[in-house]
Amino acid sequence: MQLILLSGGSGKRLWPISNDLRSKQFIKIFKTADGQYESMLQRVMRQLAGTNADIPITVAASKSQETVLKKYLGDRADISSEPCRRNTFPSIALACAFLHDVRSVPLDEPIVVCPVDPYVDDQFFSRFVELANLIANDEASIVLMGIAPTYPSEKYGYIIPSTSDPISGVVEFKEKPDAPTAQKYIDQGALWNGGVFAFKLGYVLEQAEKILGVRTHEELLENYSALENISFDYAVVEHEKNIKVVRYVGEWKDLGTWNTLTEVMETNFIGDVRADDSCRNVHVINELDVPIVCLGLNDIIASASPEGILISNREHSSYIKPLVENIHQQIMFAEKSWGTYKVIDVERDSLTIKVTLNAGSRMKYHSHERRREIWNVIEGRGLIVVDGAVSSIGAGDVIELPLGCKHMVIADSDLKIIEVQLGAEISVEDKTIHESVGGSKK
Amino acid sequence: MQLILLSGGSGKRLWPISNDLRSKQFIKIFKTADGQYESMLQRVMRQLAGTNADIPITVAASKSQETVLKKYLGDRADISSEPCRRNTFPSIALACAFLHDVRSVPLDEPIVVCPVDPYVDDQFFSRFVELANLIANDEASIVLMGIAPTYPSEKYGYIIPSTSDPISGVVEFKEKPDAPTAQKYIDQGALWNGGVFAFKLGYVLEQAEKILGVRTHEELLENYSALENISFDYAVVEHEKNIKVVRYVGEWKDLGTWNTLTEVMETNFIGDVRADDSCRNVHVINELDVPIVCLGLNDIIASASPEGILISNREHSSYIKPLVENIHQQIMFAEKSWGTYKVIDVERDSLTIKVTLNAGSRMKYHSHERRREIWNVIEGRGLIVVDGAVSSIGAGDVIELPLGCKHMVIADSDLKIIEVQLGAEISVEDKTIHESVGGSKK
Repeated sequence: MQLILLSGGSGKRLWPISNDLRSKQFIKIFKTADGQYESMLQRVMRQLAGTNADIPITVAASKSQETVLKKYLGDRADISSEPCRRNTFPSIALACAFLHDVRSVPLDEPIVVCPVDPYVDDQFFSRFVELANLIANDEASIVLMGIAPTYPSEKYGYIIPSTSDPISGVVEFKEKPDAPTAQKYIDQGALWNGGVFAFKLGYVLEQAEKILGVRTHEELLENYSALENISFDYAVVEHEKNIKVVRYVGEWKDLGTWNTLTEVMETNFIGDVRADDSCRNVHVINELDVPIVCLGLNDIIASASPEGILISNREHSSYIKPLVENIHQQIMFAEKSWGTYKVIDVERDSLTIKVTLNAGSRMKYHSHERRREIWNVIEGRGLIVVDGAVSSIGAGDVIELPLGCKHMVIADSDLKIIEVQLGAEISVEDKTIHESVGGSKK
Repeated sequence: MQLILLSGGSGKRLWPISNDLRSKQFIKIFKTADGQYESMLQRVMRQLAGTNADIPITVAASKSQETVLKKYLGDRADISSEPCRRNTFPSIALACAFLHDVRSVPLDEPIVVCPVDPYVDDQFFSRFVELANLIANDEASIVLMGIAPTYPSEKYGYIIPSTSDPISGVVEFKEKPDAPTAQKYIDQGALWNGGVFAFKLGYVLEQAEKILGVRTHEELLENYSALENISFDYAVVEHEKNIKVVRYVGEWKDLGTWNTLTEVMETNFIGDVRADDSCRNVHVINELDVPIVCLGLNDIIASASPEGILISNREHSSYIKPLVENIHQQIMFAEKSWGTYKVIDVERDSLTIKVTLNAGSRMKYHSHERRREIWNVIEGRGLIVVDGAVSSIGAGDVIELPLGCKHMVIADSDLKIIEVQLGAEISVEDKTIHESVGGSKK
């Protein structure tokens, strides 16, 4: 048995704390026993460690999430890295081909696929073995986990089972009905489709060959951006006759909107928030260094990050998308494997960022073709390599990096740098990675 | 006739757009005919230009407001600069002594005192001549402008006149009564005390000598911080028998709270604000470079500046004070005579600021004893003087200023600098101003 976790894309529904580099699964929002905060990804990995400690995990994610994933996953999981963002079927096919071609997992191995960030009981993960066993025993080509609904949601897909047994066949699937229709389905015993599927590895590779025309890891990778952009449900599940659903009764939440996310927050305020006693049912997440002051608010959700500020009535928070779609695409902050960066000033021909490298980490050896940089070291100690020359740096040092020079830095202690970028077309794309010795790759 | 405008202190009631360097009178909040925004100070100066163009004006203000006042007043007004913040009596006494000792205004000159930022009709200012004439004709020692009340406010002082005539004697003064008592006063014909007084210059200098023990400009200036911290009302007006009040009927607002300020805003949103159609009675002032997104809000006032973010129910906005009193005292942005500065990063032993100098302006020649600075020029051209040596600077230049070095800059075009300050105790106080040649003063 193998587990594939699907790491979703950004979406703007949790703006401003999600951006193109930080999807919702990385936001630290759950207070843990020791008073720290953990992300949905960290929460799920912690639950899996308790329930499925020995099952190998592969996270299917876009390349842009790779560094932050490595930071949080360490050695616990492999990453199936996608060259660009595609829907779930190409993503699952690529991960399966990776398992077979790169990790030599046999074709009859049961695979369970699950989103990387469901908000569920431990019990949810314990049930995975059950799904895998049904697959191993050839009881079906696909086994789904169906979630017992708690209300007639218009946001989910519904599975209509053929019986009310704990394990049942499936009559059909219904996508996002209106509330009265959803209630009718629920009265008939329908279940929510929570995006958990089990199948044999070879089954999906056959489907990939049939639907996408390719099946090896190399082929899938090479043609990835041109692959049909379809969901696993639509491409595979809805056409499969030999299918079973396992009923799950317990907590399950899709924390995709501010409203659902704040429902599960154990504290009302994260960050520097000062609210008076008259605030009722108010949730605030403040990622800025300055305070948010709240007075006399009711049913309000607010959030601030270097990207912007959201102030929303609780119920209206799910209508955020059209308002944030046109907001500038400048990424204002990001987590990297080596630390963090934050944009602190934007001008037409310059960008000033604060770079924080964690002790012991290093950047890749790289150069830029359209910008020069001035590094002002404000804290810590480290080594810098510029065009092959090594020197030590510390607080107060200024390093000028001309156009095209190759450079990298290694942090001895936590190292903080104010980096002034100068150029007419500053872009994160303008980066050439160099091997330590010789050759270069874009 | 002379006019003294009292420029009040900061207060925290309009946090986060007011701070210790920027009081409410400097906030640009009124949309003008040409689509720009003007501050309360600019609005009042514009109204005075239309109604009292020939009357000399002196603005009484603390030294910390001097640079920004000069920027907006130009040659239109003198400034009576107070070494520190004191109440209205010392402030008025100092301004009167300045007029007499420095500007040679005679002792029998009628003086009209008015706050620098009332929100009123032009008619209000036209009435000043009337007050001055009553004083010139010796009809009273003090003439007040009484404002016809529009509701039983608990926030203002009340003047009880002896008759209901347009010009009347005064029976007594009542400070901030509760609403029922205020209504009783109003039923008796009481007027609000709007802080407008007229008197002869010599009258206040005599009062200064009697109450403060000093009367010359030099004496007042030297002893300013030790002077009794009392209001003009309490020290003088309430003890004066020979007093008259002139009745003013017309618009008059004290824009001291978010609620009253937003009442007079002609647009609901200033800055980058994106609100959906369901927002009702919402006012947002955003001074940040990133957007504020509002969804489904009712009766909300919000404001963001580099100091922090306020989100308040309209009615609760007047209770802001206790929540913001303990917020860090780091000034995050300021307007100076030469341009602006904004703190963009704060660390224990460093501070990074963005300095914008207006074309043609210059900083004072100065040095710091406890911090060194690195200047990263990101835009524009200028001249820099470092320990007497002059060089030209432009975008991309880096200037390192060691501890104690004397420096200044002159902007040829608009000049933008990212200034990294390094030191263990960084403070705006750590600044020694040097004469162009030789000597220095703190």
